[in-house]
Amino acid sequence: MDRHNVFTEGLGIVYPIIQAPMLGVTSPEMVAAVANEGGLGSLPVGGLAPDVAIKLIRQTKALTDKPFAVNLFTHDIPDVDVQQAERMQAFLIEIAGKEGIELKKEPVDGYKWYTYRDHIQLLLDEGIKIVSFTFGALDEASIRLLHDNDMVLIGTATCLQEAILLDELDIDMICAQGIEAGGHRGTFLKDIPLPMVGTFALVPQIVNRISKPVIAAGGIYDGDTMTAAFALGASAVQPGTAFVACDESLAIPSYKEALQHATDTDVVLTRAFSGRWARGINNRFMELVERSGLEIPTYPVQNSLTGLLRKMAQQNDNKNFTNIWAGQAANKAQQKPAAAIFRELVAQMDMPEI
Amino acid sequence: MDRHNVFTEGLGIVYPIIQAPMLGVTSPEMVAAVANEGGLGSLPVGGLAPDVAIKLIRQTKALTDKPFAVNLFTHDIPDVDVQQAERMQAFLIEIAGKEGIELKKEPVDGYKWYTYRDHIQLLLDEGIKIVSFTFGALDEASIRLLHDNDMVLIGTATCLQEAILLDELDIDMICAQGIEAGGHRGTFLKDIPLPMVGTFALVPQIVNRISKPVIAAGGIYDGDTMTAAFALGASAVQPGTAFVACDESLAIPSYKEALQHATDTDVVLTRAFSGRWARGINNRFMELVERSGLEIPTYPVQNSLTGLLRKMAQQNDNKNFTNIWAGQAANKAQQKPAAAIFRELVAQMDMPEI
Repeated sequence: MDRHNVFTEGLGIVYPIIQAPMLGVTSPEMVAAVANEGGLGSLPVGGLAPDVAIKLIRQTKALTDKPFAVNLFTHDIPDVDVQQAERMQAFLIEIAGKEGIELKKEPVDGYKWYTYRDHIQLLLDEGIKIVSFTFGALDEASIRLLHDNDMVLIGTATCLQEAILLDELDIDMICAQGIEAGGHRGTFLKDIPLPMVGTFALVPQIVNRISKPVIAAGGIYDGDTMTAAFALGASAVQPGTAFVACDESLAIPSYKEALQHATDTDVVLTRAFSGRWARGINNRFMELVERSGLEIPTYPVQNSLTGLLRKMAQQNDNKNFTNIWAGQAANKAQQKPAAAIFRELVAQMDMPEI
Repeated sequence: MDRHNVFTEGLGIVYPIIQAPMLGVTSPEMVAAVANEGGLGSLPVGGLAPDVAIKLIRQTKALTDKPFAVNLFTHDIPDVDVQQAERMQAFLIEIAGKEGIELKKEPVDGYKWYTYRDHIQLLLDEGIKIVSFTFGALDEASIRLLHDNDMVLIGTATCLQEAILLDELDIDMICAQGIEAGGHRGTFLKDIPLPMVGTFALVPQIVNRISKPVIAAGGIYDGDTMTAAFALGASAVQPGTAFVACDESLAIPSYKEALQHATDTDVVLTRAFSGRWARGINNRFMELVERSGLEIPTYPVQNSLTGLLRKMAQQNDNKNFTNIWAGQAANKAQQKPAAAIFRELVAQMDMPEI
């Protein structure tokens, strides 16, 4: 049995292709479309209220009887530096006002944050069998509990050290997120500089060190890039940006449009939206925050501070004031049904024997 | 004729594998060893005095009758900010002193810098037929002159925009330098943030846009990584780090040793040594310069300011005070003859038909 079969049979799916979890973009319809085509859809619920997460899971289950992954955020909750947060809030109110978006001052220490610990029980209750996560590692008790309930666990690593740590924690599969990938970096080790490891260097290093399935993420969108990822030793691939503009995506029209014209250097890393490093198309909001010289509060503080502004910008289809995450192959996002995108990937797939 | 043959026949070589030019590491012996095995050796002469460049070229020619590339630096010469340079010099004298390396104050505006314009005539005189370059584009008159003398020109791009610019200037082949690559970034466009484009995203974007041979550089060291680069559309590959520790390398023993133990996050980008961004194994000098808070003069000012310190550190086999460039697959550097490394690459090579 080759490594791709180990991967697909371990998950009860047909093809070694995962649709990346993209909070704010991925809908139950997107996940179900990929699942129904034999891939692994990923439903992101990181940071969501448990009742919202349950609703999304049930919506997905109503659309497919195939397995899908639920994706958690495994970050810590920091103490809020109130003065730092208030300075940022004042700045956001000011720049939003100039854009015609009225924000009000609100208490910066009143946000309710949910963590993956608020999601463990609902995963059990809903009979979820595949759990992926990013921004850290699950705690050992959660790992044991989920394993005892026959769940397959997929962790995210952005460098070799993170992969080794996840392996030692008995995580079943490793998603190797190269620097090309769009959206949030999964980085969680704090004693090293932000890893900037390309897919090309990251995948083989993890494959050579760890004897578990490795999923390649970052820069993958067609037959050639899948072939390359498999050549580097990946058991599976995880396209994300390729699905951002699909019919089932929650991305606003101007976001989908911006993807078509973006080339590699339009897509940069920023902490401006959430406080965590993430890759997206450079826009006015990012420039204003970065030029302000203000300290950007850590995740999820900044994420909450910018939340209403992003929501209102999205309501106005204003791509200049919300995050428009994309990978370095941004213009490979296709505007068609997710199932059609998935079927094209399958048709182009050429898996080497091992 | 497939694209690999277009590449090899265009250059009069056998295999689509280039040994990357690595100034300070690559010797005439390394270049000749690769050339004699049927690959393209690259002799770096960027910034060297013309008589030194001529000597190196003649040494190489004495060791092989096969074609090889001569590599130029195509940067501009900046005005020296004397006060900035003197502050850096004072700091370097101080930290060197603590390391037992005695440096003296010298005029910071007295350096003699050579550019590629000082090398054009000697390339003609020596009958060189392949010229590669990095840090910019050759000027149009030089391009015409070299083309009129039947030279093949290979430019370096770190993002799509740079590749398009080189293409428009009639450069014959494009080396796509992914973020994984060791040593200096070839980046030359100044109106964009430093491109951080991974090999995985860079190569296909350039291949899809430009109908000339594209050479993949960054993260390539064996059969699997060559297969991946070819799948992404590269006509040829350019391993660098794989040759740094070879017998013919000028790298000091502690540098070769450090490569064996380095993993992805040990290898970072720095401007500390030369004023240009370059990738190398993190060491004490880099940390001291970066923590100093001092502005780092631009290339080649900083390169000249640190020159003697680096030379003396190398004489003491002190890897903490000289640049130890490496790519993100640093530990794939092999300590054996260059010919043996090259033959292994050829044995592992599996070129797809197109």
